[in-house]
Amino acid sequence: MICENITVNEKGNLCFAGMDVTKLAAKYGTPLYLMDENRIRQRIRTYKNALTKALGEEAKVLYASKAASFCQMYRICKEEGIGVDVVSLGELYTAIKAGFNPAEAYFHSNNKTDEDIDFAIEKGIGYFVVDNEEELFVIDKIAGEKGKRQNILLRITPGIDPHTYEAVATGKVDSKFGSAIETGQAEQITKTALGLKNINLCGFHTHIGSQMFDSEVFFDGAKIMLEFISHIKNSLGYTAKELDLGGGYGVRYTENDPTIDIAANIEAVGKYIRNKCNELGLEVPSIRMEPGRSIVADAGMTIYTVGTVKRIPGYKNYVSVDGGMSDNPRFALYGSEYTIYIANKMNDKGQTFNCSVVGRCCESGDIIQENVTLPSSVCRGDIAAVLTTGAYNYSMASNYNRIARPPVVMLNNGEDYVAVKRESLEDIIRNDI
Amino acid sequence: MICENITVNEKGNLCFAGMDVTKLAAKYGTPLYLMDENRIRQRIRTYKNALTKALGEEAKVLYASKAASFCQMYRICKEEGIGVDVVSLGELYTAIKAGFNPAEAYFHSNNKTDEDIDFAIEKGIGYFVVDNEEELFVIDKIAGEKGKRQNILLRITPGIDPHTYEAVATGKVDSKFGSAIETGQAEQITKTALGLKNINLCGFHTHIGSQMFDSEVFFDGAKIMLEFISHIKNSLGYTAKELDLGGGYGVRYTENDPTIDIAANIEAVGKYIRNKCNELGLEVPSIRMEPGRSIVADAGMTIYTVGTVKRIPGYKNYVSVDGGMSDNPRFALYGSEYTIYIANKMNDKGQTFNCSVVGRCCESGDIIQENVTLPSSVCRGDIAAVLTTGAYNYSMASNYNRIARPPVVMLNNGEDYVAVKRESLEDIIRNDI
Repeated sequence: MICENITVNEKGNLCFAGMDVTKLAAKYGTPLYLMDENRIRQRIRTYKNALTKALGEEAKVLYASKAASFCQMYRICKEEGIGVDVVSLGELYTAIKAGFNPAEAYFHSNNKTDEDIDFAIEKGIGYFVVDNEEELFVIDKIAGEKGKRQNILLRITPGIDPHTYEAVATGKVDSKFGSAIETGQAEQITKTALGLKNINLCGFHTHIGSQMFDSEVFFDGAKIMLEFISHIKNSLGYTAKELDLGGGYGVRYTENDPTIDIAANIEAVGKYIRNKCNELGLEVPSIRMEPGRSIVADAGMTIYTVGTVKRIPGYKNYVSVDGGMSDNPRFALYGSEYTIYIANKMNDKGQTFNCSVVGRCCESGDIIQENVTLPSSVCRGDIAAVLTTGAYNYSMASNYNRIARPPVVMLNNGEDYVAVKRESLEDIIRNDI
Repeated sequence: MICENITVNEKGNLCFAGMDVTKLAAKYGTPLYLMDENRIRQRIRTYKNALTKALGEEAKVLYASKAASFCQMYRICKEEGIGVDVVSLGELYTAIKAGFNPAEAYFHSNNKTDEDIDFAIEKGIGYFVVDNEEELFVIDKIAGEKGKRQNILLRITPGIDPHTYEAVATGKVDSKFGSAIETGQAEQITKTALGLKNINLCGFHTHIGSQMFDSEVFFDGAKIMLEFISHIKNSLGYTAKELDLGGGYGVRYTENDPTIDIAANIEAVGKYIRNKCNELGLEVPSIRMEPGRSIVADAGMTIYTVGTVKRIPGYKNYVSVDGGMSDNPRFALYGSEYTIYIANKMNDKGQTFNCSVVGRCCESGDIIQENVTLPSSVCRGDIAAVLTTGAYNYSMASNYNRIARPPVVMLNNGEDYVAVKRESLEDIIRNDI
């Protein structure tokens, strides 16, 4: 199995976090998002412990909450003592409603509106990760009006060589995010920030990439950023106290994906950073990492009921489920890979039915996965499980075709509880006049 | 201008349906979906009048409501005396709540659940467009339990030659939709349907494609389907009364798209059908057409406020707006083309700023359009207008990044009114526990 929280019980049914998926489907109906609370907490602790061990108590994990944003996720982050990264007023509002302390939140986004900035400062946001000069001036102005001095990090685009940057997984110069080192814009915005009265520049942020199965790009990113910090120390006399490396390690969507030892990788990153700082004569800054997908992806599973099974002799086969791109648009958007099982037929002999698993939306592109092998007995009423859907599924869900969004049910030590209720038809038309 | 409802006023501001877009942005805030009610009605009438003129009073237009589904759209369809095509319980529920008579609705989808079927029969749905045998049996069973005989059409996949079908725009044999003629499955399901007591087979449906700028594929589809009807008449002794040709003509997303004379095209399709029926010795069936996009697309426009304008010397430029793939995922999904203007700078000299217009979502792929030319003075606070967004924008919108969905404001003879209210932050967390 691609993750240890997936097993098969004596009835031949798929279990997630030790619980029979077919029973949960019967209890809550389908489509249904399941999330394994212990897996989430375990992953948070892996990051947190490894990071503080490697880089000291000042190092912090921030959960990139866009991966899965709802009240219970922020409660879990609060209980585990980590920060969060939010990218909108909506995410910040959700965190606050969940009792999360906004002082522990970092506000990202390439385009913060004046309204976002005003609300976040009013609520006492910990940091803005400032993308560009326009918003820097707005933050300075609004912070001044509120009599505050606002902590910020500056988002830096680390790409260096215009001839090689395409091949480097680190942030490209050509990006909608941040200010590029190569063009001089990173240094310029640093100088600007240092000159603003209501801005407290705490350091720099960079996003190196995500879904990585080794630390090469973290090394690359850390190298570039520490050299930038050293350069700024020399040119502007400013020493960054914090360095946010963004990103997160890979998760397994299929059996072909490698496993990764996160703790060992973070240890190596820590060593790399300490050595590099030593070489550059820098104190080691407070490091932040921002895992999102790798905290929640394999803590999630989507459960559907099979409807139409279509065999087109000489062509191909289709298995339709009662959800689709409305609850999981990732194949439609990116051609993402997923592993799919028929939960009530795990021990069936003859897992030989090659098919596309498709959704119910009225659109040819509404595909969950192509080239899936299922039991040849698959039929209407079976329960299908799509694995590793904890990240960017609920958070990207729409009401396309006016399909209601599924509930999120959390599993914890044999107990199940609703974290997000199923959308009702009444919810869907709530704002219609 | 790509559509006659787009003009520029004496202040150099963009107008939509005769109304100053910048004033509407100020009144309702951004992001904002605008829809031109007169344009919607005009397009419905074009289809309706052309179709009944070409093929008699029995011919019917069905609005494919997945293109834009909210209460006011169904009211407009009701007032204009056309039917609708719905693809889910949610769309049917919305139609009913808007006072639309379900007897005038056709229920599509490749995968209708038992719950969908039960609800639709209970409410008196006019027709199911039956995709496959499994759902045919479920409809027969549930209709029987409710003491009803249910009208249906069968969805037929018209593709014929496995060696050429990729190039033919008509429904492919290899499709998640319908039953293929080539494989014999279309005839088989017809035979099955005719043998079921609670099923009233009224005819056939096919979907030929959409966004078409001539009638070639309508001719192809009509030819194949009329020959199929003739074949079934000979083989099973059943004569289809209705033929639904699906589809709809193209709309202009950019100046490069051609204009199309819908009435003339429908006239040609009518002539083709009458000739073909004559040749085959068939009575002309009642024809249905299902325009969706072509009813609403150019009746829609999305209004944003410009935030970050990023110039990366030697690379490219970015203009960020206060929405993005959360309200318009079509570039991210399909690389769709759009025309974009700065509404408050329509007469600016120096429309020479080449840029990507991007959204505010924390994702590199959150792009509205690449290679856009805007005034070089574009800056934070400007009002950007994305044209031809009436179809598959509001209906595909999500809360990705927990961004609230924009309202839909209808414009009608100089009046503006809210058809769908702006989502509140409270709405977003409504189902969070």
